[in-house]
Amino acid sequence: MKILLVNPNMTQAMTDRLAAVARRVAAPGTEIVPLTATHGFPYISSRSEAQIAGAVALEMIAGNLEGADAVVIAAFGDPGLKAARELFDLPVTGMAEAAMMAALPLGERFSIVTFTPLMSSWFLDSVEALGLAPRFAGLRTPPAAEGPVADVAATMRETLVDLALAAAREDRADVVIFGGAPLAGMAFEMGPDFPCVAVDPIAAAVMQAEMLVRLAPGGACKGGLARPPGKASVGLAAPLARHMGGG
Amino acid sequence: MKILLVNPNMTQAMTDRLAAVARRVAAPGTEIVPLTATHGFPYISSRSEAQIAGAVALEMIAGNLEGADAVVIAAFGDPGLKAARELFDLPVTGMAEAAMMAALPLGERFSIVTFTPLMSSWFLDSVEALGLAPRFAGLRTPPAAEGPVADVAATMRETLVDLALAAAREDRADVVIFGGAPLAGMAFEMGPDFPCVAVDPIAAAVMQAEMLVRLAPGGACKGGLARPPGKASVGLAAPLARHMGGG
Amino acid sequence: MKILLVNPNMTQAMTDRLAAVARRVAAPGTEIVPLTATHGFPYISSRSEAQIAGAVALEMIAGNLEGADAVVIAAFGDPGLKAARELFDLPVTGMAEAAMMAALPLGERFSIVTFTPLMSSWFLDSVEALGLAPRFAGLRTPPAAEGPVADVAATMRETLVDLALAAAREDRADVVIFGGAPLAGMAFEMGPDFPCVAVDPIAAAVMQAEMLVRLAPGGACKGGLARPPGKASVGLAAPLARHMGGG
Amino acid sequence: MKILLVNPNMTQAMTDRLAAVARRVAAPGTEIVPLTATHGFPYISSRSEAQIAGAVALEMIAGNLEGADAVVIAAFGDPGLKAARELFDLPVTGMAEAAMMAALPLGERFSIVTFTPLMSSWFLDSVEALGLAPRFAGLRTPPAAEGPVADVAATMRETLVDLALAAAREDRADVVIFGGAPLAGMAFEMGPDFPCVAVDPIAAAVMQAEMLVRLAPGGACKGGLARPPGKASVGLAAPLARHMGGG
Amino acid sequence: MKILLVNPNMTQAMTDRLAAVARRVAAPGTEIVPLTATHGFPYISSRSEAQIAGAVALEMIAGNLEGADAVVIAAFGDPGLKAARELFDLPVTGMAEAAMMAALPLGERFSIVTFTPLMSSWFLDSVEALGLAPRFAGLRTPPAAEGPVADVAATMRETLVDLALAAAREDRADVVIFGGAPLAGMAFEMGPDFPCVAVDPIAAAVMQAEMLVRLAPGGACKGGLARPPGKASVGLAAPLARHMGGG
Amino acid sequence: MKILLVNPNMTQAMTDRLAAVARRVAAPGTEIVPLTATHGFPYISSRSEAQIAGAVALEMIAGNLEGADAVVIAAFGDPGLKAARELFDLPVTGMAEAAMMAALPLGERFSIVTFTPLMSSWFLDSVEALGLAPRFAGLRTPPAAEGPVADVAATMRETLVDLALAAAREDRADVVIFGGAPLAGMAFEMGPDFPCVAVDPIAAAVMQAEMLVRLAPGGACKGGLARPPGKASVGLAAPLARHMGGG
Repeated sequence: MKILLVNPNMTQAMTDRLAAVARRVAAPGTEIVPLTATHGFPYISSRSEAQIAGAVALEMIAGNLEGADAVVIAAFGDPGLKAARELFDLPVTGMAEAAMMAALPLGERFSIVTFTPLMSSWFLDSVEALGLAPRFAGLRTPPAAEGPVADVAATMRETLVDLALAAAREDRADVVIFGGAPLAGMAFEMGPDFPCVAVDPIAAAVMQAEMLVRLAPGGACKGGLARPPGKASVGLAAPLARHMGGG
Repeated sequence: MKILLVNPNMTQAMTDRLAAVARRVAAPGTEIVPLTATHGFPYISSRSEAQIAGAVALEMIAGNLEGADAVVIAAFGDPGLKAARELFDLPVTGMAEAAMMAALPLGERFSIVTFTPLMSSWFLDSVEALGLAPRFAGLRTPPAAEGPVADVAATMRETLVDLALAAAREDRADVVIFGGAPLAGMAFEMGPDFPCVAVDPIAAAVMQAEMLVRLAPGGACKGGLARPPGKASVGLAAPLARHMGGG
Repeated sequence: MKILLVNPNMTQAMTDRLAAVARRVAAPGTEIVPLTATHGFPYISSRSEAQIAGAVALEMIAGNLEGADAVVIAAFGDPGLKAARELFDLPVTGMAEAAMMAALPLGERFSIVTFTPLMSSWFLDSVEALGLAPRFAGLRTPPAAEGPVADVAATMRETLVDLALAAAREDRADVVIFGGAPLAGMAFEMGPDFPCVAVDPIAAAVMQAEMLVRLAPGGACKGGLARPPGKASVGLAAPLARHMGGG
Repeated sequence: MKILLVNPNMTQAMTDRLAAVARRVAAPGTEIVPLTATHGFPYISSRSEAQIAGAVALEMIAGNLEGADAVVIAAFGDPGLKAARELFDLPVTGMAEAAMMAALPLGERFSIVTFTPLMSSWFLDSVEALGLAPRFAGLRTPPAAEGPVADVAATMRETLVDLALAAAREDRADVVIFGGAPLAGMAFEMGPDFPCVAVDPIAAAVMQAEMLVRLAPGGACKGGLARPPGKASVGLAAPLARHMGGG
Repeated sequence: MKILLVNPNMTQAMTDRLAAVARRVAAPGTEIVPLTATHGFPYISSRSEAQIAGAVALEMIAGNLEGADAVVIAAFGDPGLKAARELFDLPVTGMAEAAMMAALPLGERFSIVTFTPLMSSWFLDSVEALGLAPRFAGLRTPPAAEGPVADVAATMRETLVDLALAAAREDRADVVIFGGAPLAGMAFEMGPDFPCVAVDPIAAAVMQAEMLVRLAPGGACKGGLARPPGKASVGLAAPLARHMGGG
Repeated sequence: MKILLVNPNMTQAMTDRLAAVARRVAAPGTEIVPLTATHGFPYISSRSEAQIAGAVALEMIAGNLEGADAVVIAAFGDPGLKAARELFDLPVTGMAEAAMMAALPLGERFSIVTFTPLMSSWFLDSVEALGLAPRFAGLRTPPAAEGPVADVAATMRETLVDLALAAAREDRADVVIFGGAPLAGMAFEMGPDFPCVAVDPIAAAVMQAEMLVRLAPGGACKGGLARPPGKASVGLAAPLARHMGGG
């Protein structure tokens, strides 16, 4: 099975980190194909950036469809997720959606912890989009990120663990999701003393993709998420223009 | 007051039609500045197209901000609306959102009527996004559009009126919204026999923009819709890159 | 265009204040006709008072319909709003409903700030009635009103601004609505340092009325808000009895 | 125990019918005191009429409080219910609310059947007010009432039973509420063949009042339903003016 | 009227306490038949224990149906309530459901106070099951129970009253429900100074049962809660096996 | 990895069918350990039967915990699911919950199709329990099951496919779940012409269990689903009594 790991951010180090965790949890026969955006933004953190990067993700998928069995959109706010499900005939998963769905059977309420308040509104949109507000115990962030984004899992570790503990103890979260690509893998490092369950979004998204390939290899391609009819376009990247044109 | 009427579709005839209705309802001192997309799609009808056209809308706004007091995104599914509110320091309205909000004080339940089933899923997203499902009496469309999109208000008129009547009589809609840019102006043509209220989306969006300019000329620029910090980018249209870069 | 500004309270000073703000935002051709209740209560602040004052509002409208294009019910809890929409063939708006609807395109969450806790339950009913609980960041009031009600915008100014700041900072409100007729105009006085958007309810209600006159001059008169058949009555004010009797 | 049965309609025959059913289900020591409105409308069927009749109900209660232990507002849409709970220090129940609450432990979904479509919107408000939309299987009415309102239980009996059967069979209702004062007692006449449970609103309201007198004899008089401070008024019926004035 | 008071816990002292309160509020002709579980747990406090004790409750009902008019499941989380309604042709009430329903006409928001945090999740399930989250002001418990469970109404009295006061003052509860069988009767002991309404669950459940016997003596036996067809079983207590087998 | 496939029904043929599908989708290293109930009912189809069979499932798990990594409760209504999550320190999944969660990323609305109307109410409870009513397109069943339950996938095949087609075409379902253990495997047999996605519940539950073992091997054991303290019991199966006693 070949899964495209589509990082719509331009930071290669982030893709590497995500791919490493993805490979650790993937089944033996699964090949992870990491892709890094070549235009857009170094790191997306808002709805306006996600509007643009979601379109970039569609280009990246269209240009690498050959032989792919599934797609993971590897940015926590899931830019372009619904559009990709509409457009491509294979399963597409997103880090935020997959992590929240994995949290449901593991507890009654989940929290999200991330490293900067800048992404709060965008992340909260994902909770709303899935209709999970009744199960959501809140978002906790530090006042600001410290140091380079790619390093926060190391440099801000203590702060992030404290936020997760506060989510468990004060917000009554049963599950904590460490949201944001730079925190990939961090959930697996919580020890047995951690008083709630920690969920890793990229791991959840990869395993959900593997599951969907077995359950529904053609993806979500009919009815409400039907592929629109072929349509001419101007200015799109060639593979996407071809795909959307019905080619 | 200067309002940008941003049509993220590439069809000039559609912009002309929208601008004509906009000018008819605008207050004496309001100048309507119509803009038509120069790339993207002739006519958007799906989430994947809206993902791309929403980014195009951001470019169009960034390139024409000078002297503008408000923006109307002139496509019924409101592509890029939330992103634009985040990014620009002036009021931004959308045809779907404004039409639904205008419907609320005019009845208990509203319906949407449009000319093709292809846009159903995308339009329903707008209802969900505003949390208006409890007030929504449903969407009615013909089995397929007939003839050129730009002409449907004329060619499909009888069909569309029949759908509106069915919405009122069978679905208990008090208000019918004629959704989709090609139907601009049609609501004003329903006679006194029409058994419910018909709402015109572009008129609603323009007048809502005028109202917001008076109430909150800086737009929705703080808190949950705060403008993200300046950020470098690659491949964006120059004015948008400059704006998002903090320039 | 002639808009009845119906103050169902008996305090003339309050009507004057409301009319002044209304005239400031109304379009050039709009005439504001202020009306003050001649029976009922000096100032409504509860559901039981609103039950009675809502009926008074209906009388006031019925007695002044001649030549009117729209009605604004000028008390924040919107007494008699739904009944008036049912009964009269022209657009009717309310301060609470219009303010909350204006808040929606300006932010993700809104708060209400008022000058006394006595009106809390009644005001919260308005939030529920519009189904806006998911967008509501809470109500903040001082422990008690200070001095004459008509003067609180001046005497309690500092306290009210502090409550608005707390709503923005602690409750994550993007928009603050200053609720209650005695606070009319206050939102326009917040300076550029104010960290969120302030919305003025009477301004919103007047401009919404202007908009609805253009969109649907006959008001919300069919379907779920249909005018009931003519019916005999005993003890009603003459113009209302005549109107409800089908006259 | 003395229960005021407050009919805010002016039709004495309706009060008699309601009182007869109330006395049939009341506990041995319970005295039913029927009151008929002396002004307002012969029969309320809309929100505008209920706005006025709810104020009439408050007058009727204020004028007959002496020795009363509880109040039943004996019109199906519960005019003035929340206001009465705020104002008076004893339990107050309403026919619609009590019937819907009695339906909950008797089935998963309930329907309302009534004799005229004119009351539909008003009755649906009661469902919304209790937040019971998820348990509501719908409202069924004939196209129009036939004959004098006071006689419909007899003249329209077959039609009404057919509507109840349709609610059970087509709408999957487990419980049918016969709504509207003229149908009082009808639920008790459904035979053992009736395929779902029929609930009588006035019976439910009287027994709920008896229960609340034992559980909370002071009624709902604090917090969110606190009695407003005494306030001067003009034009109110004397006992109500005295009561609201703090007398 | 004969009401089975089914305590699915094995503690006789608790049954005695519940029966005493039940008899105090029951109507003159009502006979309360208390039953104590002979297997299962001394005191249920979790979903897993309720899964088992709910089945025990079904056995207890099936073995004592002869001559019974209604059943009260006398444990606050209502174990087996929905199953019992499905299975038996008479009204069945539960302490949690009945208390919450009694709270609704007595205030806008209710809180639950209990003596141990161990039951929190289970009790919160009851709130969700009735769809009452919008009316729920929260659950307050001490950090841990003190002394024998059967005595907590006495030994922890001051703590529990303080929690109730905090619910009223800090959480804006209008009604406080003292949840948990060992607190039966406590609500009636709150003095006139208590700033909100206190509701006793066993009293509410018994009076609700009396009411339902009059409204619908056959219970909730059709449609969505229809009795399943007779079915063979292995290992069930004989009367339950017989009842479920169609005997 | 060792997964207990716990069939709380007593029909061995059903267990065999479920185990066959489970083994087909399980990862290479996964061992499926099928268990069939030895008491309870041949086939559960109601809430009352599920109340009892859920307790049986707890016994089956407690008696086979040794070496197990996860549990699948192999009956579509998920009897005992929440209780098992509370009680055991490993991931527990259920067929209904897993199937509905797998449906979410595959479409906007899902339907359930099953072979008998008898299970409707019980199945609908699962939809409510996950809060998925807004995504639910309805349940379709034939008027009655035909022939032995274990054979319905063959004998009723055409009827069931027709119901699935009706769900897709008339109810606008994007995903159809074939609910009920006797239909295990059927979803995989829908051909490429099937106009929506078909999801197999046992496959979804097994793969979800595999995923959760990797994400959170200790299961949902803290916070809102915390294991209750050890407690004495009477009459429970020995391994369950020991487990619940803290042994």
